[in-house]
Amino acid sequence: MTRKYNFCAGPAALPEAVLLKAQAEMTDWQGRGLSVMEMSHRSEEFVGIAEKAEQDLRDLLNIPSNYKVLFMQGGASSQFAMVPLNLLGQGGRPNYLKTGVWAKKAIAEASRYADTHIAGNCEARNFTSVPAQSEIVLSDDAAYLHFTSNETIGGLQFDYLPESGSIPLVCDMSSDILSRPLDVTDYGVIYAGAQKNIGPAGLTLVIIRDDLLDQAMDVIPSMMSYRIMADNDSMYNTPPTYAWYLSGLVFDWLKNDVGGLEKMAEINARKAAKLYAAIDNSHFYGNPIAVANRSQMNVPFTLADDALDKVFLQEAEQNGLLNLAGHRSVGGMRASIYNAVPEAAVDALIAFMGDFEQRHG
Amino acid sequence: MTRKYNFCAGPAALPEAVLLKAQAEMTDWQGRGLSVMEMSHRSEEFVGIAEKAEQDLRDLLNIPSNYKVLFMQGGASSQFAMVPLNLLGQGGRPNYLKTGVWAKKAIAEASRYADTHIAGNCEARNFTSVPAQSEIVLSDDAAYLHFTSNETIGGLQFDYLPESGSIPLVCDMSSDILSRPLDVTDYGVIYAGAQKNIGPAGLTLVIIRDDLLDQAMDVIPSMMSYRIMADNDSMYNTPPTYAWYLSGLVFDWLKNDVGGLEKMAEINARKAAKLYAAIDNSHFYGNPIAVANRSQMNVPFTLADDALDKVFLQEAEQNGLLNLAGHRSVGGMRASIYNAVPEAAVDALIAFMGDFEQRHG
Repeated sequence: MTRKYNFCAGPAALPEAVLLKAQAEMTDWQGRGLSVMEMSHRSEEFVGIAEKAEQDLRDLLNIPSNYKVLFMQGGASSQFAMVPLNLLGQGGRPNYLKTGVWAKKAIAEASRYADTHIAGNCEARNFTSVPAQSEIVLSDDAAYLHFTSNETIGGLQFDYLPESGSIPLVCDMSSDILSRPLDVTDYGVIYAGAQKNIGPAGLTLVIIRDDLLDQAMDVIPSMMSYRIMADNDSMYNTPPTYAWYLSGLVFDWLKNDVGGLEKMAEINARKAAKLYAAIDNSHFYGNPIAVANRSQMNVPFTLADDALDKVFLQEAEQNGLLNLAGHRSVGGMRASIYNAVPEAAVDALIAFMGDFEQRHG
Repeated sequence: MTRKYNFCAGPAALPEAVLLKAQAEMTDWQGRGLSVMEMSHRSEEFVGIAEKAEQDLRDLLNIPSNYKVLFMQGGASSQFAMVPLNLLGQGGRPNYLKTGVWAKKAIAEASRYADTHIAGNCEARNFTSVPAQSEIVLSDDAAYLHFTSNETIGGLQFDYLPESGSIPLVCDMSSDILSRPLDVTDYGVIYAGAQKNIGPAGLTLVIIRDDLLDQAMDVIPSMMSYRIMADNDSMYNTPPTYAWYLSGLVFDWLKNDVGGLEKMAEINARKAAKLYAAIDNSHFYGNPIAVANRSQMNVPFTLADDALDKVFLQEAEQNGLLNLAGHRSVGGMRASIYNAVPEAAVDALIAFMGDFEQRHG
């Protein structure tokens, strides 16, 4: 086995310890004679796995008991519909902060169900810094304020919590959940696709304050109803059991191997700081994002000469540094340095970048 | 490793060869230095995995080019909404055959979007035989006729293809797809949750004739749109990549290890025949379903004295025969003998049943 360093934006690297554990128990989980994949979701064994995963997540994020944790399917893109479908049954306008590609997708889907209000927008400055609190203006009839805590493609991350008064905050936290501690009580709804910091693609986490469970629109499909999912412990139908199990292994790793989210945040801050320093200290690499809003998870950067992009990617791969191409919509480079990307990977990338600059800069 | 015989109705047994292959390449797929779980869904590697899976499925089922194959999320329960949402945009009444628990769920969800017509119903005979063709009466304005080819809980399976003239047939084939050959051109839409004969929970297959892609209702969430999924090769957002990969391994196993669906059907017929014979040849075990409609996949049976149910299940488990309890809604026993349950498992179950009857009967 020669594992390489994987900077993919998602599906992303998983902790090696998690993969090794999953591998060891793939065909026979704890001597029961079957794989986790082959268990009834209602079996004692799987319910135990599921409950431990939820409890570890609750411990990591300190989730209060008036918040439900839902293990759903469909990714953040399904949440783009589920949020308005679940929250607009009593009217009101959905308010959004427009911060990049993912916020725009959320807005487009919500606009299919209601007249959305853009409460803050940094498009005029090409999404290089988030809307400041002073720039945010909610509509009078706001039902909720939605924002994207980290724009995976743009590499733009909120450095503060938007204030919305009594209006529930809804956050797409797909690409930075579990990267640092947070206060769940600041939010009405948090959702996140699993395939960055949680587990494999195919699972979506929703954390929702229980007073928001009963505001659904009539046209909502039952499988999209937070209320139905909450009442059935996310087992209204067969959940994605293996993805749930793997996410549980990741939560366990975060809690016990890493030592919790404060420790994880320290490591992440160190990884990001040294990578941005390497970019800033060179005349060859660049990143356009305002320093305060630079993503600690997704670090896009450009070369002084984009004719070298292809060579950079090829040589990086030859050096065991995988998936550094920027998103197909923007080009350039992007290093995603999620929780499971070890500091050694960032060090190796920085060393390679220095060497590449010397030879080509 | 001591693998046991697993008769779970779903998530169900997977072929041991598939699990071993997945285990071997868990941390490093074909020397690329990363797990399939960690690959971008748009990488050359994963697109290759995805396309091979689709091609193998097309080969197995002989799917013509005017049918799209979609790899979706959310299980059959999401399809219960997606079918009306995708097919009723031009009006018409959804027609359903009522054959048991799963048909009823499909009907209940469709009834949230339209006035459903029950075109055939075997509830009066307690779902012990399917509606005969002569009992099926479509409404004048039928948009489609939906049926459940195999009722997983009741153990009731269609032994003929319902005739619907020019009205598209829509089939929930979750628990018997790939168990035997079929003619895809008989259907407008076939869907199936993966966790019985396809792969792990979290993936749902949809096979749809392409002239049916443009009949969606306005309120459909984008992620539920067959058209959007078809136009994006099921990668409108991040698909459940690992479940897709595992399903591909199952398709490969079916094609190359088993030798195709005719061979699989032979084995399945033999497994079911000997298990029903064991039931029929005893005065201790019983199955209420009409012989022609007995499911080849899910074999429910009762003991002469249901006070012995618990002992039966305990002793079965001690003998390495897992998950024989009937569905919580009906009790009794149920042996699910999907493709991946080897004939030796059925033989072992029959031997145990005989022994149990001798000691307790």
